[in-house]
Amino acid sequence: MGEEVKFHGMWASPFSRRLELALKLKAIPYQYIEEDLSNKTPSLLRYNPVHKKVPVLVHNDKQVAESMVIIEYMDETWENNPILPRDPYERAMARFYAKFIDDKLLPTLAKLGQTAGKEKEETIEEIHEQLKILEDELKGKQFFGGQRIGYLDIVAMILVWLHLAGSITGQKILSTENFPLIYEWIERVMKMEVVNECLIPEEKRQDWIQLAQRAPKSASN
Amino acid sequence: MGEEVKFHGMWASPFSRRLELALKLKAIPYQYIEEDLSNKTPSLLRYNPVHKKVPVLVHNDKQVAESMVIIEYMDETWENNPILPRDPYERAMARFYAKFIDDKLLPTLAKLGQTAGKEKEETIEEIHEQLKILEDELKGKQFFGGQRIGYLDIVAMILVWLHLAGSITGQKILSTENFPLIYEWIERVMKMEVVNECLIPEEKRQDWIQLAQRAPKSASN
Repeated sequence: MGEEVKFHGMWASPFSRRLELALKLKAIPYQYIEEDLSNKTPSLLRYNPVHKKVPVLVHNDKQVAESMVIIEYMDETWENNPILPRDPYERAMARFYAKFIDDKLLPTLAKLGQTAGKEKEETIEEIHEQLKILEDELKGKQFFGGQRIGYLDIVAMILVWLHLAGSITGQKILSTENFPLIYEWIERVMKMEVVNECLIPEEKRQDWIQLAQRAPKSASN
Repeated sequence: MGEEVKFHGMWASPFSRRLELALKLKAIPYQYIEEDLSNKTPSLLRYNPVHKKVPVLVHNDKQVAESMVIIEYMDETWENNPILPRDPYERAMARFYAKFIDDKLLPTLAKLGQTAGKEKEETIEEIHEQLKILEDELKGKQFFGGQRIGYLDIVAMILVWLHLAGSITGQKILSTENFPLIYEWIERVMKMEVVNECLIPEEKRQDWIQLAQRAPKSASN
């Protein structure tokens, strides 16, 4: 069809990596443009003038920003390998928990590197309460999407990042004891080649942790 | 079809009122349950255990929370009077700007009642920058949805609330001079009976302003 798909992202942005995973799961060929967020390309500024953030998808002459908006657009534009469930109620539940991760869990995780002492303990407690909700959501399921990886799994990849960060910093928020179902899910998805391709490569993980610890303001969505 | 639709809401919650408008636009019969947020009904707590907030839609035995998730669910479940555009790109744009209103404009508006002096001036400036983005989105259009009222118009009802609040407090953020297209849009939607039914009744607007000015924490979504 002569379709052109370009994706502006940044290697350490979980929002960029979730879009990468969605593109690969849907088997959509694309051209990747790595953005230096301290020196954004003119096309990024043109494509996402509202937020000036990655990721941005450019499909032919149309640009879409905001990772979850992009994923819904892709799922509606290319029907192969659906990412969202087909049933309206299951779709609603996937969107509800995805929003929960983005609006509740991510801000709490962001507080982790910026707090100490009692405040940090309270943050960890809050994260545990939020993870409990996701643990319950995995009951009786292989993936958040049921029998196969889907929309909520893509958003929940942040749990894999949390697990990887814990392995590097030694601060383990997640363990097989306190969240067995999430832990099993992490092991299951990390065995998938397509997921591994969308994680930060091992040799860059130290850089990533340093970047994450000093980045106070989100530059992606 | 013997369908049962219940909607738990709260009179002064803009998120409840946007769901009310969506139900009316789609002509879905429903039973309304007003929640006292200081004394929530056991069913609200059961239906939205994650956030414990209004609005909640209960369709037969299924419950859905989060206003925008509910509206997408309704639009996929009942096909009559579609709320979202049909074209995937137009859908993406509607979702993008709806998210912009919820994630960017609403938090800035919330700061308005909590700031004074220079900080308040900066907040107003920030609101004006955000409104400019929405003003641009209305260029050449009757409604945010194009020729007819739709998804983004429902979310943008907060602009009508802002206009009404300005008429009461005397603090006019929006005028026909600075945002002519938004102002025309407000006049256009306020002439629609269905929109008026979903605004706070005139006799309750003083109470609403007082409530809005002292409510620091959101109890609805």
